Amino acid sequence: MKDVSEKDAERHRAKMAKRKAVQDAEVAAKTIEKGLLIVNTGPGKGKSTAAFGLALRMLGYGRKVGVVQFVKGAWHTGEKDALAAFGDKVEWHAMGEGFTWETQDIKRDIAAAEAAWGKARALMADPAISLLILDELNIALRYDYLDLEDVVAVLKKRRADLHVVVTGRNAKPALTEAADLVTEMGQVKHHFAAGVKAQQGIEF
Amino acid sequence: MKDVSEKDAERHRAKMAKRKAVQDAEVAAKTIEKGLLIVNTGPGKGKSTAAFGLALRMLGYGRKVGVVQFVKGAWHTGEKDALAAFGDKVEWHAMGEGFTWETQDIKRDIAAAEAAWGKARALMADPAISLLILDELNIALRYDYLDLEDVVAVLKKRRADLHVVVTGRNAKPALTEAADLVTEMGQVKHHFAAGVKAQQGIEF
Repeated sequence: MKDVSEKDAERHRAKMAKRKAVQDAEVAAKTIEKGLLIVNTGPGKGKSTAAFGLALRMLGYGRKVGVVQFVKGAWHTGEKDALAAFGDKVEWHAMGEGFTWETQDIKRDIAAAEAAWGKARALMADPAISLLILDELNIALRYDYLDLEDVVAVLKKRRADLHVVVTGRNAKPALTEAADLVTEMGQVKHHFAAGVKAQQGIEF
Repeated sequence: MKDVSEKDAERHRAKMAKRKAVQDAEVAAKTIEKGLLIVNTGPGKGKSTAAFGLALRMLGYGRKVGVVQFVKGAWHTGEKDALAAFGDKVEWHAMGEGFTWETQDIKRDIAAAEAAWGKARALMADPAISLLILDELNIALRYDYLDLEDVVAVLKKRRADLHVVVTGRNAKPALTEAADLVTEMGQVKHHFAAGVKAQQGIEF
């Protein structure tokens, strides 16, 4: 084992005792409980994946999760299959028709986005749902398939105890302004650049 | 429904057809399959959560996942409970003694990190494991509880088909250099700053 002198160990203890006092005071100062509007955006990986990790956490408490996919349909099959293990605790709606360059049909894309948003509103109204994931909603907003002002207004008026996660690149400023928690996934290094292909269990 | 002229729809179709050709060429150019070394770092949320989302994806294909927690023990109970639904497809080892300011005992922290690393090495040697999550390993490396050079060397020599995810702030440059995929979770806005407390299903 790595060697630590008694003096260093004592110095560490004193420093950490101080840090604990600071931490405890910070925790005590936070008293608000509320359903959060969470936005995972940015060019890096992990936006949808982190949302599904949050679903897992919520399911661990026996709470119910809703998922509406605005773009991807055939993708994300891994987590969809896995979440089937939780039966009716997960309401999964793959409403996307695929990427815009797959459909090549803007009218179909808009119709799909509107249907997905209708499903999202229905799930928001269901008091049994604790967490609602609006996967790739940012893409539908970016291409103006949905009215930004209307979407933000509805999200702001969500039930007090409902957590909503919105994912996708290029989150609109009006959405991040309304959000409680915004994380920007930054791409530092990506294996696609090194010629590695999309692999089962990683990308899909 | 939002109105789109025929002319705009046709322009969109032509643009997307071009984009699809580019996408297809890019996908075709990527041919390598390999177990990835993935690092989720940065000050923002989603580092561990995205790793557990990846676990979910892998489990959706019936593949086995290992988890070693280097710091948190009592935390993450939500996802731990949820992953219990997958039985022996998940090997979960909470080897951390809690945050350094909780233990206030550097010798205990080092011993815990070394035991966790021993467990990580054992799971890396198990060919049944497809994905190994080394949760908060970056913290143990940051405080020099483990030898960086040794850890990176072992990770580099992993099985060709093993995916490893390392999480935690302040990833060491030697680790990110060895990694295939590095994502920096950036904190744009956090609800703690607005006085919101840690809530069930969100933070734990």
